[in-house]
Amino acid sequence: MNTPALCAIPVPDPGEIRPGDSLSDKLLAALSAQDLRLEAGDIFVLKHKIVSKAEGRLVRLDDVQPSAEAAAWAEQFHLAPRLVELALRESRRIVRRRDGILITETAHGLVCANSGVDLSNVDGGDSAVLLPLDPDASARALHDQLRQRLHLEIPVIITDSFGRPWREGLTEVAIGVCGLAPLLDYRGQSDAYGYVLHASAEAVADELACMAGLVCGKLNRTPACIIRGYRYRADNGSAAQLVRPAARDLFR
Amino acid sequence: MNTPALCAIPVPDPGEIRPGDSLSDKLLAALSAQDLRLEAGDIFVLKHKIVSKAEGRLVRLDDVQPSAEAAAWAEQFHLAPRLVELALRESRRIVRRRDGILITETAHGLVCANSGVDLSNVDGGDSAVLLPLDPDASARALHDQLRQRLHLEIPVIITDSFGRPWREGLTEVAIGVCGLAPLLDYRGQSDAYGYVLHASAEAVADELACMAGLVCGKLNRTPACIIRGYRYRADNGSAAQLVRPAARDLFR
Repeated sequence: MNTPALCAIPVPDPGEIRPGDSLSDKLLAALSAQDLRLEAGDIFVLKHKIVSKAEGRLVRLDDVQPSAEAAAWAEQFHLAPRLVELALRESRRIVRRRDGILITETAHGLVCANSGVDLSNVDGGDSAVLLPLDPDASARALHDQLRQRLHLEIPVIITDSFGRPWREGLTEVAIGVCGLAPLLDYRGQSDAYGYVLHASAEAVADELACMAGLVCGKLNRTPACIIRGYRYRADNGSAAQLVRPAARDLFR
Repeated sequence: MNTPALCAIPVPDPGEIRPGDSLSDKLLAALSAQDLRLEAGDIFVLKHKIVSKAEGRLVRLDDVQPSAEAAAWAEQFHLAPRLVELALRESRRIVRRRDGILITETAHGLVCANSGVDLSNVDGGDSAVLLPLDPDASARALHDQLRQRLHLEIPVIITDSFGRPWREGLTEVAIGVCGLAPLLDYRGQSDAYGYVLHASAEAVADELACMAGLVCGKLNRTPACIIRGYRYRADNGSAAQLVRPAARDLFR
């Protein structure tokens, strides 16, 4: 083909990730086992779960004592009381709680179901995975490790699947970013017709997360991918820039 | 590379699209001029603007008489009164109106800024583009034309850029779909650890729209792309399935 294509290349299964594991070791080994390698210009996108596992953000449900509030609400909607308890502990604000759905704001400012606490793809339901404490720092750490190992500046995006108001289904969002501008601001630039754009910026880190979500499935062991062919803007941006400040948020 | 990649291939500039133009003629001509062709398994993704133009969903601003309400609100926030008037006409409900931002629900049930009415990439600011009257029908029409021309079943997705609560920046969403299931429901299936998934479905049509958004820029004339290598589920689904029914919406 003549035109440059934008591609997502799945990273092969790195095997189970355990607390203390080096993600760069595991993922680079999985790549070279398949004769794949990162190249200059690539972006590395990971689902947060392997990051949380490497960082030990796991809680055995047997060790969680639900509060009376968590237990009562869980019973009413046939939910797991220990999961509700963890979701409440990981939240700094309850955004909505209705019909068995708990939407919270996490310490990171992320608005999502159950504070991002999840039982899938861990150990069959015995343990819960929490979001990384500081996903931007996690992205930066991996970015730095990749630079040391490969002598390349590879932007890193860490993702999770969030629901949205008004629309059905989950999509991936960027919860940790290092090495690229997460927002591209077109305001003030002219389109091909000379019209000066007024609309807001494009959340390219979330769009890259969505693209990665199409190859990093929920039911296969593909927790990461390489995105090749996207001309990103190198920047010391972070996923925190994607969180709208309360003062500018019409939906609090 | 050994592993199959997922790729987005930009469709070259089809030239200006005018009311009554055949989109399939224009886009297929642009593809063959560059020795590109659609293949079995491809998905065709278009920004809605060329669909609206082909369907004549254009309004000359000089022909719009703003109501007193639109004029007063526009003046308060230094907005274009005719654009506000069109946004109100195209809405069936005002979701939020504050600080010069107008979030509405359109007749399609889409919640977005200014009912999707937009002045960019038209003619330098003299005319506004409205959303297609029925974007699912528009997608179906193009799908049928591609079948007739190519004897291939090519799913079609029509997109627009929407903002989101709580997060900065716009991302692409699917407003018209034909030929694939827009939602993949993992509920009841087991992950690699034997845990049965409870979370909601994945909005793959929106993730495909986001991926397309990365190659279909705002400032270049790339209104469409081919997505190759995504194993979609063929289905007579529609983008209407992505609109959450009011009864299940926690954010009305």
